Amino acid sequence: MKKSILSVMLFLSGIVLFAQTKDEQTLKEIYKSSLTNSKCYSWLDYLSNKIGSRLSGSASAEKAVQYTKAQLETLGLDRVYLQEVMVPKWVRGEKETAYIQDNKTKINVPICALGGSVATSKNGLTAEVIEVHSIKELEALGNKIKGKIVFFNRPMEDEQIEAFNAYSGCVDQRYAGAKEASKFGALGTIVRSMNLRLDDFPHTGAQSYGDIPKSQYIPTAAISTNGAELLSKKLKNNPKLKFYFKQSCKQMDDVLSYNVIGEIKGSEHPENIMVVGGHLDSWDLADGSHDDGAGVVQSMEVVNIFKNLGYKPKNTIRVVLFMNEENGGKGGKKYEELAQTNKENHIFALESDSGGFSPRGFSLESDDVNFNKILGWKDLFEPYLIHSFVKGHAGSDIGPLTSKTLVKAGLKPDSQRYFDYHHALNDTFDAVNKRELELGAATMASLMYLIDQNGIEVNKEVQ
Amino acid sequence: MKKSILSVMLFLSGIVLFAQTKDEQTLKEIYKSSLTNSKCYSWLDYLSNKIGSRLSGSASAEKAVQYTKAQLETLGLDRVYLQEVMVPKWVRGEKETAYIQDNKTKINVPICALGGSVATSKNGLTAEVIEVHSIKELEALGNKIKGKIVFFNRPMEDEQIEAFNAYSGCVDQRYAGAKEASKFGALGTIVRSMNLRLDDFPHTGAQSYGDIPKSQYIPTAAISTNGAELLSKKLKNNPKLKFYFKQSCKQMDDVLSYNVIGEIKGSEHPENIMVVGGHLDSWDLADGSHDDGAGVVQSMEVVNIFKNLGYKPKNTIRVVLFMNEENGGKGGKKYEELAQTNKENHIFALESDSGGFSPRGFSLESDDVNFNKILGWKDLFEPYLIHSFVKGHAGSDIGPLTSKTLVKAGLKPDSQRYFDYHHALNDTFDAVNKRELELGAATMASLMYLIDQNGIEVNKEVQ
Repeated sequence: MKKSILSVMLFLSGIVLFAQTKDEQTLKEIYKSSLTNSKCYSWLDYLSNKIGSRLSGSASAEKAVQYTKAQLETLGLDRVYLQEVMVPKWVRGEKETAYIQDNKTKINVPICALGGSVATSKNGLTAEVIEVHSIKELEALGNKIKGKIVFFNRPMEDEQIEAFNAYSGCVDQRYAGAKEASKFGALGTIVRSMNLRLDDFPHTGAQSYGDIPKSQYIPTAAISTNGAELLSKKLKNNPKLKFYFKQSCKQMDDVLSYNVIGEIKGSEHPENIMVVGGHLDSWDLADGSHDDGAGVVQSMEVVNIFKNLGYKPKNTIRVVLFMNEENGGKGGKKYEELAQTNKENHIFALESDSGGFSPRGFSLESDDVNFNKILGWKDLFEPYLIHSFVKGHAGSDIGPLTSKTLVKAGLKPDSQRYFDYHHALNDTFDAVNKRELELGAATMASLMYLIDQNGIEVNKEVQ
Repeated sequence: MKKSILSVMLFLSGIVLFAQTKDEQTLKEIYKSSLTNSKCYSWLDYLSNKIGSRLSGSASAEKAVQYTKAQLETLGLDRVYLQEVMVPKWVRGEKETAYIQDNKTKINVPICALGGSVATSKNGLTAEVIEVHSIKELEALGNKIKGKIVFFNRPMEDEQIEAFNAYSGCVDQRYAGAKEASKFGALGTIVRSMNLRLDDFPHTGAQSYGDIPKSQYIPTAAISTNGAELLSKKLKNNPKLKFYFKQSCKQMDDVLSYNVIGEIKGSEHPENIMVVGGHLDSWDLADGSHDDGAGVVQSMEVVNIFKNLGYKPKNTIRVVLFMNEENGGKGGKKYEELAQTNKENHIFALESDSGGFSPRGFSLESDDVNFNKILGWKDLFEPYLIHSFVKGHAGSDIGPLTSKTLVKAGLKPDSQRYFDYHHALNDTFDAVNKRELELGAATMASLMYLIDQNGIEVNKEVQ
């Protein structure tokens, strides 16, 4: 080999080594900043304990908008603003009641109305119960369910390693169960809570009547897993037992709300936008500390870390706190609509909406070229125990985004405990560990940094 | 290449592929068995909620011996037996009290005596306080600490990614602080709890007076992290404030206790022993559900899984529930002593003593050859999110084992929350997640299976 070529090669490999060393150093600083000097945990404390649950359209959701906007304004960003969005407003009303009427015995069981459900009549609903384990089984029963309450009782599969796979294998019962049961004349549905644990918390969540006429809407509620086990057992002994439940929830007119946005202008490519976000709304039963208070404060922490380190991104970094992920996704849709109107070019979007647990990696929506590029950074993440880089769903709020050159990523925390809390009364601040939350924020900031430095490959192979 | 050589190579690679597929299938069955059909969570429920804390020499430690022996006897093992071991017995006595006396104001703070500490006098101990951050700083102060209470207040380092590194960087204050302070005439020591969180739980743990004369033993206690922050702040305003504490703990005579052992005889190499274990004793403040109830029931679950799957190990599998890890390590030493006496040949030992959290990998004490052999199984573990195979401390109970051909491993669960509970009042059953515990047991069973199938490489390069 000629000496000159060798020199060039040595020089080039020097550059690669230097970049790697620089990236290693920056990630170290990012993690240190997050673990020793972050605001995310105290932000979450305020969101959870001072503001509380933040269902779209509620007064507390609006407080959360004002609070996070004010906090972003303290960070010295280039721009902080609100984006108007009309959101559905559903209210639970009085606490629900339910019991199993087994001959002369009444046994109270914990239920909660599913989001978007209609109320029962004022006196509640009483009927015999048919237990099913799938919508298919319901359809096979057909008109036999007429006049009955349908009880969906397919449990989340314990043998799934990733808890989200167990969830997605079950959630059709909650989301579409009432709509399907209504078609065959059921009077209401009771759905086993989406929870891998046996406990007494009913878990709410979105349901949809789809396009059936309003007159056919039937009330639907979730029952705790212990309640579901009990009901199933009692039904085996007495298939003629009756179930009573009463709920007074109501769908109101849509109301004005906001996405909250903070921005650091890119120093080299201000026209290229990188989003990091979570959703500001939560269900109404608890603080929503994991879902998705954690994602909100982690996203805010990403720009806080950049500011603390004096890092000036090449591309525009935008933290977006989306409204209404839980029951409509209007915030995400509005964000995309305005991005289209303003002809914005998004190159990357990262969402945190899987809880504030120990981060394990990322779930990526990407073509192969960019996926492999990100995989190439695996060694950089190894000291931080970040190891799982997989293709998969990135996030609901960034779902609508359609810029031509766009990689999407979802933070992938440890999933085992997520459904212990998801949409239930116990999704509270004390269920979040400060360090796990901060490690998640640092992991997000690290990927944002690496994408900002190295860019996204354009017009390559499409996935 | 000659056709015959090619055939042989294809045949051999077929064998490798077949083995891999068989291993994949077995790991799948192991994880499924643990997640759907395990006993470990209900065993832990009993150990924690029916028996409770299990400090060596206590009546409940003996109940735990009898309970786990009886449970092992239900599993159809080839042999279940006890191993006698004399253990230290230390009792806490009445609940400790402590306050900061700042001029006329008394502020109560939560403390607990450190294990092995002597009592204060009946009326307690009152003295001025000197805050230090290391034993080195203490030595530099020398005789200035005479007649004072030394307050060790070096926090665990937040920036450490692995919480155990933060612990090992601090624990000398707890273990040796009193001994060192006594040499310069201190009257007592107060040690910041080994806890990364700010909260109100004092964390106990072992301390040792080493070889100083008994007459120089001084009382030593842990203070909660919030208490330590407060004391430090108050000291800045008033270096002359006094601290009061009272404890009535006592070291008793050693008593007879037991290691609990269950065994499946090896079908091919019964003379080769593979140990899997945790420690049966716990500190006295709580159930010790993470430390080390989790390790105990996971170890028992390993043989339960093998039995459920009808797996007949080639080597002898021995589950060992060690007594007295926390304050003496007598169980581990006795086990090794008898192994020597009986000329036993241990090829592998696996310990779980880092909490019942989501498993991440293994910490291995091994020569390079066997380390690399285990690393070669990384892909098999990937579907179960087991990714971290590092050289490092395997476990205290298996520490004394010295068989010539021996690889040691420690289960490495996620470490972030471990020190929230470690040796404190809140190390209780509700802090353990069923799935995380079961995933840990499956991870242990998987490594035991792979070592059993593939053996340990003998007489290769020594680390």
